[in-house]
Amino acid sequence: MNEADFIAALRALPLHPGAQALRDDAAVIEIGGEALVLTHDAIAEGVHYRPGTDPADIAWKLVAVNLSDLAAKAAEPIGVLIGATLVEGAERFVEGLREVLEAYGVALLGGDTIAHAGPATFGCTAIGRATVRPVPARTGARAGDALYVTGSIGAALLGFEAGDGAAYLRPTPRLAEGLALGPHVHAMMDVSDGLLLDARRMAEASGCTAAITLDAVPFAAGTTDRLAAARWGDDYALLFAAPDGVALPVPATRIGAMLQKGAEPLLLDGKSPPERLGYEHR
Amino acid sequence: MNEADFIAALRALPLHPGAQALRDDAAVIEIGGEALVLTHDAIAEGVHYRPGTDPADIAWKLVAVNLSDLAAKAAEPIGVLIGATLVEGAERFVEGLREVLEAYGVALLGGDTIAHAGPATFGCTAIGRATVRPVPARTGARAGDALYVTGSIGAALLGFEAGDGAAYLRPTPRLAEGLALGPHVHAMMDVSDGLLLDARRMAEASGCTAAITLDAVPFAAGTTDRLAAARWGDDYALLFAAPDGVALPVPATRIGAMLQKGAEPLLLDGKSPPERLGYEHR
Repeated sequence: MNEADFIAALRALPLHPGAQALRDDAAVIEIGGEALVLTHDAIAEGVHYRPGTDPADIAWKLVAVNLSDLAAKAAEPIGVLIGATLVEGAERFVEGLREVLEAYGVALLGGDTIAHAGPATFGCTAIGRATVRPVPARTGARAGDALYVTGSIGAALLGFEAGDGAAYLRPTPRLAEGLALGPHVHAMMDVSDGLLLDARRMAEASGCTAAITLDAVPFAAGTTDRLAAARWGDDYALLFAAPDGVALPVPATRIGAMLQKGAEPLLLDGKSPPERLGYEHR
Repeated sequence: MNEADFIAALRALPLHPGAQALRDDAAVIEIGGEALVLTHDAIAEGVHYRPGTDPADIAWKLVAVNLSDLAAKAAEPIGVLIGATLVEGAERFVEGLREVLEAYGVALLGGDTIAHAGPATFGCTAIGRATVRPVPARTGARAGDALYVTGSIGAALLGFEAGDGAAYLRPTPRLAEGLALGPHVHAMMDVSDGLLLDARRMAEASGCTAAITLDAVPFAAGTTDRLAAARWGDDYALLFAAPDGVALPVPATRIGAMLQKGAEPLLLDGKSPPERLGYEHR
């Protein structure tokens, strides 16, 4: 059973209506007239970071990738719960946690610690308060929308290749951009698994075809293999669909458009894209 | 850094007021006139279950231990988020998840899957709606209260020793009991790390001394080593402090009393208890 089969099997379980059929990065709970956004991402040594990584960077990345999911929902963070393997250098983990919590004004709510053998794993649940209804999702894009990204694509890959990689280890959740964009978008998500894969996911969830022009993508300075960068995650840019020509409150780059659903959910320069679009667990 | 040092370091981070200084099993968020209860527990192969355990049992235990924390808060479950290693036999994991969700009327909200080497780890965040204010906590016990447990103590140890162990692998979260007891208790928690350890924690959090009479503890039939059973977790009984003599809505056994804080936070048959009271990660 690979990841896709596993998630497909989970879809047959009793799902909360706010789980959005597990087709989004976050769930939405309506309570007391408010909408809460909840997301859970886990990371593991050897998969999401190299063995020997400073535990402070692990803590930063763990929280930042979850806050990025809140950003894509235009949600204000309330707090996080952390599940952590008790690692060597746990002091550094706490220090990185402090840095990321303070950087984004987020509070620790609780969590759990386990001491076990083998690669360390970490989970984070982030809770935020929705600021706009409907809460932006992958599903809302419409044919005729323009497709945009904030920031640039490829810095995380360059950082990973260079082996230092603040862009890879210390991603920036685009919370302010997400809050500003919330009222203007039809669909929004963060680019965590690769621009092409995530754009296809948005198109599929919205019943559209995403058409991307590679030349239009704002690749990070120094990017040599543009296709590799477009298939690499970890940049945590925001990808969103909005009415073409709408005035946007933050800088963003138009990289294509949403079309009526065609034979392919994703077109790259008008053609079928390469088979592998991004990162999927197998 | 052991678990206690790690948690002490976490206490110096920016904490949410609802985190209760990380001295409880769950956090409480006030939102829109409601109170949400959030808890996160993680389990690992080789620590919380033996290698080779049916993944259906792992899923059950993962969710049940988190629902048990909601039970101790007199909270109605809303849903869970699951972080899971993609294991061999993931189909069975999904099946166990279905069983536990259906058994307690809980919905899946979302989560994340990771494929990694080494022992599998799983995290669960459970979210519930508080039904009583103040939300029962470890902190509310008062000198003069009686100390009670629901159910019995020791079945999980017997199950673990027998190697089959439905009581060990498929614990029962006491949700109905917790809801019923909520309006009557001064303090409540679930017994997950050992009756003696957890009673000491409640006493410390409440600024009292807990005095337990071993003969009064309702040990499971077949228990031979009563002290071992009193130091073993996994029974997920509810431990609570309530006014002595109050009429209780569910069966419970009086095992002692809360006293004015003395030199020891816990007395067993009037004396200092053994040094090791239960399970702590080191």
